[in-house]
Amino acid sequence: MERGRRGSGLPTAALEDSVRIVEGAVLILDRRVFPGELSWVRCSDAFEVAEAIRAMVTQSSGPLYAACAGLELAAVQAAALPLDAARAAIGAAGDALATARPTNNHPLEAVERVREACVDARSTAELVEAAVTAARAGAELYRSRSRALGDEAVKLLPDGARLLTHCWMDTYITELVRAADRVGRSYEWIATETRPYLQGARLTAHTLRELGQTVTLITDGMGAAALAPGSGIGPVDAFVTAADRVSLDGTVVNKVGTLGLAVAAHAFDVPFYALVQSPDPGAPVGADIRIEDRDGDEVLHTLGRRTASALVTDAWYPAFDATPARFVTRIVTDRGAYAAADVAHYFDRPGA
Amino acid sequence: MERGRRGSGLPTAALEDSVRIVEGAVLILDRRVFPGELSWVRCSDAFEVAEAIRAMVTQSSGPLYAACAGLELAAVQAAALPLDAARAAIGAAGDALATARPTNNHPLEAVERVREACVDARSTAELVEAAVTAARAGAELYRSRSRALGDEAVKLLPDGARLLTHCWMDTYITELVRAADRVGRSYEWIATETRPYLQGARLTAHTLRELGQTVTLITDGMGAAALAPGSGIGPVDAFVTAADRVSLDGTVVNKVGTLGLAVAAHAFDVPFYALVQSPDPGAPVGADIRIEDRDGDEVLHTLGRRTASALVTDAWYPAFDATPARFVTRIVTDRGAYAAADVAHYFDRPGA
Repeated sequence: MERGRRGSGLPTAALEDSVRIVEGAVLILDRRVFPGELSWVRCSDAFEVAEAIRAMVTQSSGPLYAACAGLELAAVQAAALPLDAARAAIGAAGDALATARPTNNHPLEAVERVREACVDARSTAELVEAAVTAARAGAELYRSRSRALGDEAVKLLPDGARLLTHCWMDTYITELVRAADRVGRSYEWIATETRPYLQGARLTAHTLRELGQTVTLITDGMGAAALAPGSGIGPVDAFVTAADRVSLDGTVVNKVGTLGLAVAAHAFDVPFYALVQSPDPGAPVGADIRIEDRDGDEVLHTLGRRTASALVTDAWYPAFDATPARFVTRIVTDRGAYAAADVAHYFDRPGA
Repeated sequence: MERGRRGSGLPTAALEDSVRIVEGAVLILDRRVFPGELSWVRCSDAFEVAEAIRAMVTQSSGPLYAACAGLELAAVQAAALPLDAARAAIGAAGDALATARPTNNHPLEAVERVREACVDARSTAELVEAAVTAARAGAELYRSRSRALGDEAVKLLPDGARLLTHCWMDTYITELVRAADRVGRSYEWIATETRPYLQGARLTAHTLRELGQTVTLITDGMGAAALAPGSGIGPVDAFVTAADRVSLDGTVVNKVGTLGLAVAAHAFDVPFYALVQSPDPGAPVGADIRIEDRDGDEVLHTLGRRTASALVTDAWYPAFDATPARFVTRIVTDRGAYAAADVAHYFDRPGA
């Protein structure tokens, strides 16, 4: 994409364009090996897209874009079917995409949006057009809400702030950096490497550098040392992450590791800002959000190579953790920032 | 070594015998690659031993054993020198060994013990004998104090307890496991992998398995999730680590990552027990302990392979962090366990 397309003077990062529809297939940039390798996984139907999401070819905001692209592809591929069969095909594609991973539910929202758009179609042609339009609108809505989220986050972050982040905030971080740039602010970033997939070392640190930002990499165990008073890399002005989901009681579910950093930030009086487009009205409390348990084997390896002793067979890999509201300073949404305990008031305020 | 030599029915682990003097050289098992490779670094004099310590060929308790072996080698190599030159040679070897790394001062204590033993020597032969005897006694004292420490720790840990540990406690953990075995107790271990060197994934998890223990590996970011109520791997009964040094105000200096886990344990009411033979009378407060800053390049790599994006040039690697007394439940010494704030009372009590 051309420089400046996203409303700031910054270049476009590779990961801002990591899902494409090309020649009847969805291409997904393989984040498991990026940026060491620039490799695209070709998915010939929505079920292959769902499998790619499950296999971590893409993650963070990626599954939302992949799900929208998978729905668009499913709709186009249904164009020759009778109306009922076409609707069933799009529905089955949606089911697969919505359930590929259990914790982040943006793909589910995109699927529901497409399903609603299809309800009144009276012909296959109408159905396909409605589904394609809704799928594209889903991706665009996600981008525009992330942009609003970036603007809201920047209001809390003064120019020159030193920010600790964890894992890969994806569209949220690129839009935050762009929003800051638009108002003449920039930040110094500290990124955790985020084992086992090293999203921080590969995706976050790489993208921040592509965007011309300052970034220092640390291991996941160093966050508390960075946050503590008098640290060799501090003071840290805020801990900032995305949230995969936020329940109405202000529990922040995000990449495992967030909880420990949030607890440390709280202990050392550093604010923790969690970014999410909106809390989940379907999750009254944190326990309502299912935490995905992934294969522990991933902990025994680093980028495909065995790094633990061969004698070790047991490992634990919860993909996310849940940070209770008392450790969260503000939940930043596309409608503004809320004290964690008050985040249910999001629904009192009209959309931006 | 034969089974059961260390006073329990457990086999001997490879890392319990990782420094040897063979044919006029110190051999040090290379922990940077163990257990993937079983490779010994040959040091032909004490200065090469010091360089091996600096380069992380060995760490945790390893530098103490390596320093004692280096002193013994230096003494033997000085046997043909006049008395003053021999004393100077042993002194220079001691200086190099004591300052190889700045945070843990057990090597310094061993050096001082040898230096004192040499004071009254009236011939080179007496000097060499005194130095060799003192060097060997230093290693043996470290082992016996670790054994006492293990006994004291087990008093706090009931049979079947699930214990989270970080990095590699070395002689402290093997003696703890043996002490437990002697009184019919065993534990379930959860080990952090401990980036960047992966001591947990390689040394701790491997050694625990060699000793027939149950161990589950997690990444460094998962500790808080393990400690939180209702975790998929809990409840964790205690967080247990070694300490490289403890100041008289109860600040625990240990491998970076300890602080974050201690803060999380405190937040979730899990006791944190830090093991150290004795607090450091020369360090009244935590700030008196120098934290070693290592090359950030190590964070950009995993076992020698670049794992961070090539665009990232800045990384931070403090080898240790300092946990304030308020996050420490007990400091366990060879004279018993103390509330962290009371650890200076160690010196009121006679040795075990």
